[in-house]
Amino acid sequence: MIKVGVVGGTGYTGVELLRLLAQHPQVELKAITSRGEAGMPVADLFPSLRGRVALCFSDPTSSPLADCDVVFFATPNGIAMQQAAGLLDAGVRVIDLAADFRIKDIAVWEKWYGMPHASPALVAEAVYGLPEVNREQIRGARLVANPGCYPTATQLGFLPLIEAGCVDPAHLVADVKSGVSGAGRKAETHTLFSEAGDNFKAYGVQGHRHLPEIRQGLARAAQDKTEIGLTFVPHLVPMIRGIHATLYARITREADFQALFEQRYADEVFVDVLPAGSHPETRSVRAANTCRIAVHRPQGGDTLVVLSVIDNLVKGAAGQAVQNMNLMFGCDERSGLTQIPVLP
Amino acid sequence: MIKVGVVGGTGYTGVELLRLLAQHPQVELKAITSRGEAGMPVADLFPSLRGRVALCFSDPTSSPLADCDVVFFATPNGIAMQQAAGLLDAGVRVIDLAADFRIKDIAVWEKWYGMPHASPALVAEAVYGLPEVNREQIRGARLVANPGCYPTATQLGFLPLIEAGCVDPAHLVADVKSGVSGAGRKAETHTLFSEAGDNFKAYGVQGHRHLPEIRQGLARAAQDKTEIGLTFVPHLVPMIRGIHATLYARITREADFQALFEQRYADEVFVDVLPAGSHPETRSVRAANTCRIAVHRPQGGDTLVVLSVIDNLVKGAAGQAVQNMNLMFGCDERSGLTQIPVLP
Amino acid sequence: MIKVGVVGGTGYTGVELLRLLAQHPQVELKAITSRGEAGMPVADLFPSLRGRVALCFSDPTSSPLADCDVVFFATPNGIAMQQAAGLLDAGVRVIDLAADFRIKDIAVWEKWYGMPHASPALVAEAVYGLPEVNREQIRGARLVANPGCYPTATQLGFLPLIEAGCVDPAHLVADVKSGVSGAGRKAETHTLFSEAGDNFKAYGVQGHRHLPEIRQGLARAAQDKTEIGLTFVPHLVPMIRGIHATLYARITREADFQALFEQRYADEVFVDVLPAGSHPETRSVRAANTCRIAVHRPQGGDTLVVLSVIDNLVKGAAGQAVQNMNLMFGCDERSGLTQIPVLP
Amino acid sequence: MIKVGVVGGTGYTGVELLRLLAQHPQVELKAITSRGEAGMPVADLFPSLRGRVALCFSDPTSSPLADCDVVFFATPNGIAMQQAAGLLDAGVRVIDLAADFRIKDIAVWEKWYGMPHASPALVAEAVYGLPEVNREQIRGARLVANPGCYPTATQLGFLPLIEAGCVDPAHLVADVKSGVSGAGRKAETHTLFSEAGDNFKAYGVQGHRHLPEIRQGLARAAQDKTEIGLTFVPHLVPMIRGIHATLYARITREADFQALFEQRYADEVFVDVLPAGSHPETRSVRAANTCRIAVHRPQGGDTLVVLSVIDNLVKGAAGQAVQNMNLMFGCDERSGLTQIPVLP
Repeated sequence: MIKVGVVGGTGYTGVELLRLLAQHPQVELKAITSRGEAGMPVADLFPSLRGRVALCFSDPTSSPLADCDVVFFATPNGIAMQQAAGLLDAGVRVIDLAADFRIKDIAVWEKWYGMPHASPALVAEAVYGLPEVNREQIRGARLVANPGCYPTATQLGFLPLIEAGCVDPAHLVADVKSGVSGAGRKAETHTLFSEAGDNFKAYGVQGHRHLPEIRQGLARAAQDKTEIGLTFVPHLVPMIRGIHATLYARITREADFQALFEQRYADEVFVDVLPAGSHPETRSVRAANTCRIAVHRPQGGDTLVVLSVIDNLVKGAAGQAVQNMNLMFGCDERSGLTQIPVLP
Repeated sequence: MIKVGVVGGTGYTGVELLRLLAQHPQVELKAITSRGEAGMPVADLFPSLRGRVALCFSDPTSSPLADCDVVFFATPNGIAMQQAAGLLDAGVRVIDLAADFRIKDIAVWEKWYGMPHASPALVAEAVYGLPEVNREQIRGARLVANPGCYPTATQLGFLPLIEAGCVDPAHLVADVKSGVSGAGRKAETHTLFSEAGDNFKAYGVQGHRHLPEIRQGLARAAQDKTEIGLTFVPHLVPMIRGIHATLYARITREADFQALFEQRYADEVFVDVLPAGSHPETRSVRAANTCRIAVHRPQGGDTLVVLSVIDNLVKGAAGQAVQNMNLMFGCDERSGLTQIPVLP
Repeated sequence: MIKVGVVGGTGYTGVELLRLLAQHPQVELKAITSRGEAGMPVADLFPSLRGRVALCFSDPTSSPLADCDVVFFATPNGIAMQQAAGLLDAGVRVIDLAADFRIKDIAVWEKWYGMPHASPALVAEAVYGLPEVNREQIRGARLVANPGCYPTATQLGFLPLIEAGCVDPAHLVADVKSGVSGAGRKAETHTLFSEAGDNFKAYGVQGHRHLPEIRQGLARAAQDKTEIGLTFVPHLVPMIRGIHATLYARITREADFQALFEQRYADEVFVDVLPAGSHPETRSVRAANTCRIAVHRPQGGDTLVVLSVIDNLVKGAAGQAVQNMNLMFGCDERSGLTQIPVLP
Repeated sequence: MIKVGVVGGTGYTGVELLRLLAQHPQVELKAITSRGEAGMPVADLFPSLRGRVALCFSDPTSSPLADCDVVFFATPNGIAMQQAAGLLDAGVRVIDLAADFRIKDIAVWEKWYGMPHASPALVAEAVYGLPEVNREQIRGARLVANPGCYPTATQLGFLPLIEAGCVDPAHLVADVKSGVSGAGRKAETHTLFSEAGDNFKAYGVQGHRHLPEIRQGLARAAQDKTEIGLTFVPHLVPMIRGIHATLYARITREADFQALFEQRYADEVFVDVLPAGSHPETRSVRAANTCRIAVHRPQGGDTLVVLSVIDNLVKGAAGQAVQNMNLMFGCDERSGLTQIPVLP
C-alpha cells in the first residue's frame, strides 16, 4: 500500500483527489491537511465522503506527511515550492497540482505568477507530468509538476500535429472553454451561481497563465526548433465540470490526419480518438480520467479543427495526478481510475 | 459470473444500468436490446461507454435473453408485464424497473396506468424491491418490482415514523422535487433545456402515479391497520439528477426521533441518517446508491420535517435494481455499488 | 418627476431597482450610493446599464439624498433603521427593501435579526408595503417596509383562505423554493455556481427570518383572532430568479376555492389567478412584477394546495418597491412596471 | 398604428416577437397564425403573455394577413418563400425571420438548405436586414431577409476590420457559441435539459448553414474584391439565451483598432463598443436588442481577437426584425426596443 498525504484538501482539486484515492486499491490515506479546517472531519465538509474517508483535516505543521510515500499538493500556487524540498529530503515523493514546477524558465514563471520563485533548483529537477509525453521520466521522478487543465486538453489536441510538423506553429489558435469548477472553491463574486449561470464570457484575453505552459509543451514537441505562436482565449461556461478546447491550425504539409491522431494515441489508455466527423461532448468524460479528441478539416480547406475534451478536475487535475502516482509507484496506470463517465 | 440482459437500453435508466453493470465484478453483460437501435454499438449512442461496453443493441426478438440468469427491464410501463412470464418460464429471473408489478391492487394499477394489466398473477408473485423493507423476500424472488424514484425517497423518509406509529398517518404531506432526468430521454417539449432550465414548477398536483405506490408501501409499514392520507406534490428542478423529498407529518406520540431514524437504518449500508440539524443536498449522493436523511422538528412544534435525498437514476432506479440483483444472487449487497458520489 | 435616491446600489436588489427606475416615466434618478464603489460609474459595475444610467456611485455621506422625494434602501438589514429618521425629518419619504421595519413586535425582530433595534418608534409608524393588503395606508405613508420575497409569495397564496376562515390556521405548511439570486451578490461559498448548480437542498429548517414576518401577516389576515401555526421550509433551486411557494392547508369550511381566489384578486393588476388545474412556472413571471397563483384540491381531499410564483427580485423586492412608490406619489400603480415576462 | 401579422407564433422567435410587439407603441397586433394550435388563446401556450396578448392563434388560411401592413414570418425555412409573393401582391410588406431570402446565390442556398427555391425573383429583390449595413435600403424595402443569429454577431464583429482592409480575409476564424434556445422549441433529444445541461460541445464543424450567409456579408464588406476564407465552428452552451462570437483575424495593416470600432459604430444605437480590455458577457444583453463588442490584440501580436455578444432571440432574431420594421415604417429605430437587459 502506498502511504499518501494530501496538503490542502478543502478545494475542488482536493475533494476530487480524495474521491479517487479513497477508491484506489493500493492507497492508504494517511493525512489531509488544512490550516483553516484542522480538526474537522473531512466528511463534515464534504458529505459525499461520509462513510468513505474517516480522517479529520490536520494542521500542516503537525501532520505525518514525512511518513508518507507520496504527498500531493492541492494548494494555491506558491505553497509547494516552499514545502517540497523538506519532504523530498525526507524521502517523500511529491506531486504538485499547482503551477510551481511547471515552467522551466524561472523568469517566465515569475513574470506570469507575480512572485519570486522559492526553489529554482527543484524546477530543474521536476518532471512535467503529462504521461502521454513524459511517461518514462515520470516513473523515476521524485517531483512531478502536474499539468494545468487547459494545458492538458490543448497539448493533447495539438501534439500529434506539432510532432509531425504538419501545421504552421507560428499561428495556432486555442479557443478553450471551462466549467466553473476550474475557478476553484474560493468565494468570489464572478463565480457565484447568479453571475456565472445562464451566461457566457471570455476572460483573460490579454494573457492567461496557462499560455506559457502550453507554449513550452508545444515547443518541446517541435523539438525546440521553432517559435510557437499561440493565441489562447479561455471562456467560462455555465457548467460545473469539463473543458472543451477548439483548436485551429493551418496545414503546411498534407497527411492523413485522422490516422495521425489514431496512431499517436494507439497505446494511450486515457486518450480516445473519436471516429472522423465526431463532436466530443464534455459530459462524455464527466468524472473520468479520459481525454476524447476529434479532428476535422472543414470543407477540405487549409485549416484543421481539433476538438479535445476532458474533465478539468480529473484528467485536468486529480485524475492525472493519480495516473502519475501510479507510474511513480509501479502500479497499473489505470489503477483507481476505472470509473465510467457519468452520463447524463 | 451472473449472465445479465437488459431490455430497453436507450433511456437514462438503461445507460445508468450499463454504467453500473459494466463495473460490477460478478456480472457478464450478455445482451442489450433496443427495437429502434438494433445493430448500433451501444457506445455509439453513449460515448461515455466507449471502451467499456463492446455490445451492440440487439433486436429483442433475437436476443439471447433466455440464456441469461437475470434480465432487467428498463422499458416504458406495459412492456415487462407482457414479456416477463416467458423469461420466468425459461428460468430467468426478472427485475422490472418500470411500474408493471409495483401495485398489488390490479384495479388501482389499471386506473392510474390507464391500461389493462396483462399478467395479474405475476403481480401477486412479484416482490417489491425496496431492500430496506423486503430484503429476505428479495433474496428468494424470481420477479422483483423495482420501486419508483419518488416512492424510494419518500418511503425511506416516512417509514421509521409510520412503523413506530408516531405520526398521524391520515395527514402526511410529501413535497418532492426531481431533476429532469426523471422524465426520461424521450424528446418532449416540456423537458427541453430552454423550457425546464432556469425555471421551477409543480406538476401533476391532481394526481401522480407514484401516489398509490407510496400509499401502498406506507400502509404496509402501518401493518394495514390504518388508512394513509397523503398529499403528494411533485416538482421539476432545473438539475439533471437528484430527488429531494421534503416530508411533513404531525406528531401523535413523542419519541427521540433522531434516535428512531438512526436505529431503523443502523444496519443499512445505503441509507445514511445525518446528524441532527443537517440539510442533505442532492449532490451529496450524485451518481451513487445512497439515500441521505435528516429529521427536523422546527421550533419544537408538533410537525416533523424529514429531508430525504437520492439520485433518481441510482438508488431511485438502476442502482437499487443492482442492489436487488446482488441480493437475489447472493453477492455482497454493495457489489458494483461502491462509487463515491461525484461532488462538485 | 419624482426625484429618487438609492442607498446601496451594488447588490441584486439595487441593480434591479435601477433597471426599473431607469425605465420609469415619472422618475429622475438623483443618487446611487455605495461606500465601497464610490466614484465608479454604475454602468462599469453593471454593463447592462451602459447608456441607460449615467450616474456614478456616490459616497453615502456626501450624496444629495436629502434633496430627493423618496429614497430606497437596498442595503443589508440594520442600515435603514439608522438612517431613515434623518431623511424623514428632511421631508424625504423612505422605502426600505430590507427587514428593518417589517416586524411590529420589536422583541421578535431583535431575536430573529440578532441585533438591538435602533428606532422602534419608526417601526410603529412604518406601513407594511404589501399593496394587496395595505394599499390605502401605503398611499399616505412616509415610511414603507417592503415585504420579503418569501413572505410576498406565501402571503398572497394564503391570504384568501385565511381571510375567509376556510382553513385550519394552526397547521399551515409553506414549502418554498427560491432561485439563488435571493441570497444576494455577496461572495459566499454556498452560492458559488459549482456549489448551488445541479443541486437542490433545503436550508434553515430550524427557523428562517421570514417565518415571523409571514406569521404576522397571516395573523392580521385572521384579524388576530387566532394563533398562526406555520411550518416554513425554504429551499435553494439552481436557477437565478424566481420563487415558487407550495402551500398546504387543511380545509375547515367548504367553499368554491377557485372563485374565492378569483374574487379576492379581481381588482389586482399584479396578481393573476390561473384557471383551475394550472401549474404556474417561475419563468412565467421572470423579470416582471406579477404573482401567479393556482389553487388545487388533490383527489377532492381535505387538503388544499396553493401554488404561488413571483420573481424574487421584482414582485419580491424591487418591483414591489416601485409599486409602493407609485402609490405614495399618486402615479398609476403600473407605471414603470409594464414589462412582459421574459420567456424563454 | 402599424397593423401587424405574425405567421408561426408558437416557436421561440414567435413568442419573442409577441413580447416585443405587445409593448410597441405603434403596433396593433392583428393575427398570429399556427396551423397546429389554431383556436387556442396565445396566452394559454405562453402564460407570460396573459393579460397582454388577447389574440388566439388562427389558421393561416383564414387569417386576415392581407389586411396587415406588415407580416413577420417566424416559420421554419421554406415557408416564407411560398407565401411572401401573395402578401406582397396584396400590398403587405414582409419580414422573414427564417433563411429563405438571405442568400443571393440561389445555387448556394439550395445546396445548404437542401430544397429547391420557390421564388428566386424575390431573393433578388429582398434586402438583407442588417441595419448597420443596409439601413437605407431597408427603409424602402417591401421584403426584408432578417439575418441569422450567428451571422449578426459575427458580421458586426468582423465588419470594421474587413471594411478597413486591415486583416487577412482568407484566414478568418469564427468560434461561436450559442444558448440552447437557438435550436428552437421543437422537441428533439439533443436539446433536452438532461442532454444539453451541464455539458458543452461543438456541432456542425463540417459545415453550418450560417457559413455562406456570413461569407456573403463579409464579401460585400470587402466590396467583393477578395475571397472570404472563414472557418466557422458553432458550439452549444448550457444557457437559454445568448450568442458569444470569438473572432480571430490576422493583421495585415496596422491601425488603431479600438478607434476603428468606435468610429464605425459611433452612430449605431444598438451596437456598443466596450472600452479596451473588456470582456462582454452574454447576460449584459439578455432580452435586449444590443450587440456589445470588444477588440483585443493579445500580447501585441499579429492576431486580433474580437468578442461580440447578442441575445440570439432579440438582436439575433425578433428584436432585429422589429428594428427593421421601425425603419420600414418611419418609426424611431428604437421604438419598442428600449428594454434594459435583465441582469442577473
